[in-house]
Amino acid sequence: MTDTNTDSDESTSKCGGAKSDDSSSSSSKCGGSSSSSSSASGSKCGASSKKEKTEEKVGATVEDFDGEPGKLTAVGLGPGHPEGMTQRAREALLEAEHIVGYTTYIELIPDEITDQAEDIYDTPMCGEVSRTEESIDRTLAGNDVAIVGSGDPNVYALAGLALEILESKGATASMVDFEVVPGVPAAQSCAARLGAPLVNDTVSISLSDHLVPMPEIESRLHAAAKESFTITIYNPWSRKRRENFEKCCEILLTHRDPDTPVGIVHAAGREDEQVMITELGELEELGESEIVDMTTTIVVGNEETYVWDDRMVTPRGYETKYDY
Amino acid sequence: MTDTNTDSDESTSKCGGAKSDDSSSSSSKCGGSSSSSSSASGSKCGASSKKEKTEEKVGATVEDFDGEPGKLTAVGLGPGHPEGMTQRAREALLEAEHIVGYTTYIELIPDEITDQAEDIYDTPMCGEVSRTEESIDRTLAGNDVAIVGSGDPNVYALAGLALEILESKGATASMVDFEVVPGVPAAQSCAARLGAPLVNDTVSISLSDHLVPMPEIESRLHAAAKESFTITIYNPWSRKRRENFEKCCEILLTHRDPDTPVGIVHAAGREDEQVMITELGELEELGESEIVDMTTTIVVGNEETYVWDDRMVTPRGYETKYDY
Repeated sequence: MTDTNTDSDESTSKCGGAKSDDSSSSSSKCGGSSSSSSSASGSKCGASSKKEKTEEKVGATVEDFDGEPGKLTAVGLGPGHPEGMTQRAREALLEAEHIVGYTTYIELIPDEITDQAEDIYDTPMCGEVSRTEESIDRTLAGNDVAIVGSGDPNVYALAGLALEILESKGATASMVDFEVVPGVPAAQSCAARLGAPLVNDTVSISLSDHLVPMPEIESRLHAAAKESFTITIYNPWSRKRRENFEKCCEILLTHRDPDTPVGIVHAAGREDEQVMITELGELEELGESEIVDMTTTIVVGNEETYVWDDRMVTPRGYETKYDY
Repeated sequence: MTDTNTDSDESTSKCGGAKSDDSSSSSSKCGGSSSSSSSASGSKCGASSKKEKTEEKVGATVEDFDGEPGKLTAVGLGPGHPEGMTQRAREALLEAEHIVGYTTYIELIPDEITDQAEDIYDTPMCGEVSRTEESIDRTLAGNDVAIVGSGDPNVYALAGLALEILESKGATASMVDFEVVPGVPAAQSCAARLGAPLVNDTVSISLSDHLVPMPEIESRLHAAAKESFTITIYNPWSRKRRENFEKCCEILLTHRDPDTPVGIVHAAGREDEQVMITELGELEELGESEIVDMTTTIVVGNEETYVWDDRMVTPRGYETKYDY
């Protein structure tokens, strides 16, 4: 559910009981669908007709659905392996009739869960807006729906978009008994692999300027680096915006020493996980290497962070009070 | 494991194979202990001899232990209910021979897990330093030990202290196969209950000045509030330092409107959980009310955060690109 910032266009797939004009809808099954599928429904966003982003519209409204809406749950899967999921997340997925998500995240869910669902709706390369609308339309059509993502639904993720789209459709969160099931965010999964880099006050900043203007991101980076926060950087690099990463490194170096410890975790909890501890002065050139991409999370230490026995440690301050 | 900032003195309980002078040790059982106890071992830190903080010393060093050390795992339990625990956390606890933690957190662990442990070492009102040393001494004595806390071991918690004490004892993290098992932090548990307040760049700040000087905390609050971060406030209030809370409210109000949405979650996931959404201008006077104490987490919205249908929503920015 962590924002993947795929800049692809959005389809406007419609759903179940929707009676509105659906001339541009994808072939997504929904509503009364009872097919059991552990991989994908017939709907493939990539294959559906595309529209310009600026024309993207939410089709159906609450008026277009008859009957009782189902329940909508935004579920955070945590890091990429099933053991990282909470028991509540597992239960929420088992309770859901439909599971909706980005294909990569759906594939993280154990088969014994997806096999129990009436329908799985996953989109391989498309955006969050159409997928979230799909989950809401299915809910308003009477299905209990879980919309999933890795990490936590509140971390650059879809909990907010779900509420925004519910509102735009004239529905309410109460009407669909909207619930957020939290998960372990990438910052925590990555920090655990690095040791203890985040035990003090900390900041999360995404370098994606898809939804936030770059000057705002730069200003936040300056403020955080000046104030001795540790900093977790989400969405650090993509080919389209290598300048954001370069600019970020430059800003951090105006406030912190080049030998400030930096932890890099690629694909935390997945098969291709890689962990590296380096120094801030070395970070920029790693942007072009395999370890830094959109599945990477970077943890920048503060002035007190040090590396010991291949672990990053940010002292909490106990050493100022206790003699150990 | 979230810092509870109990300002009590520390005992200097020693453990297992420790051969150093243990004249001030508590009555904690350990090392070869094989008693099965789901509540507490004989050790009660409150009952042990106390020393002045400034005299607090780590007793045993790695030289004092013979044989192979065990494994040390810092486990985050997530929010206060067992369903909030990850499967990996559950497994790590089942693998541990000894489980060490603050009594309140030990009580969050299901009986079927604590019943399987050889020994439980919990301290009711004492500090983190002696408890963490106890867990390390037990590990160096050859036991597989889990040190537990609520939330995540990297969030104002013991992962760093464990590494610092290991180092001070002349041991290494590799020697004890040190592992951090991440959990859902309080920020995420609370955000989930509030809706979607944290979907954009965000900051965590603790108001406890036990280990961090207040001027530094104030400076971070100014920086975060100026830069449109959402802000999660940990350890907001205790009788001893109500001025910190008052100062925090004052600083936030110099940068944000009095009607900025603020979410308050007391004892997330526990029986006495309370959730309230209010406004920044009302926050200070709530400091004296029951909902704000050391088990409370406060989420302060940014300039764009709004309240809809009893949920806090911080837009991620989709509305600037998509028409829904």
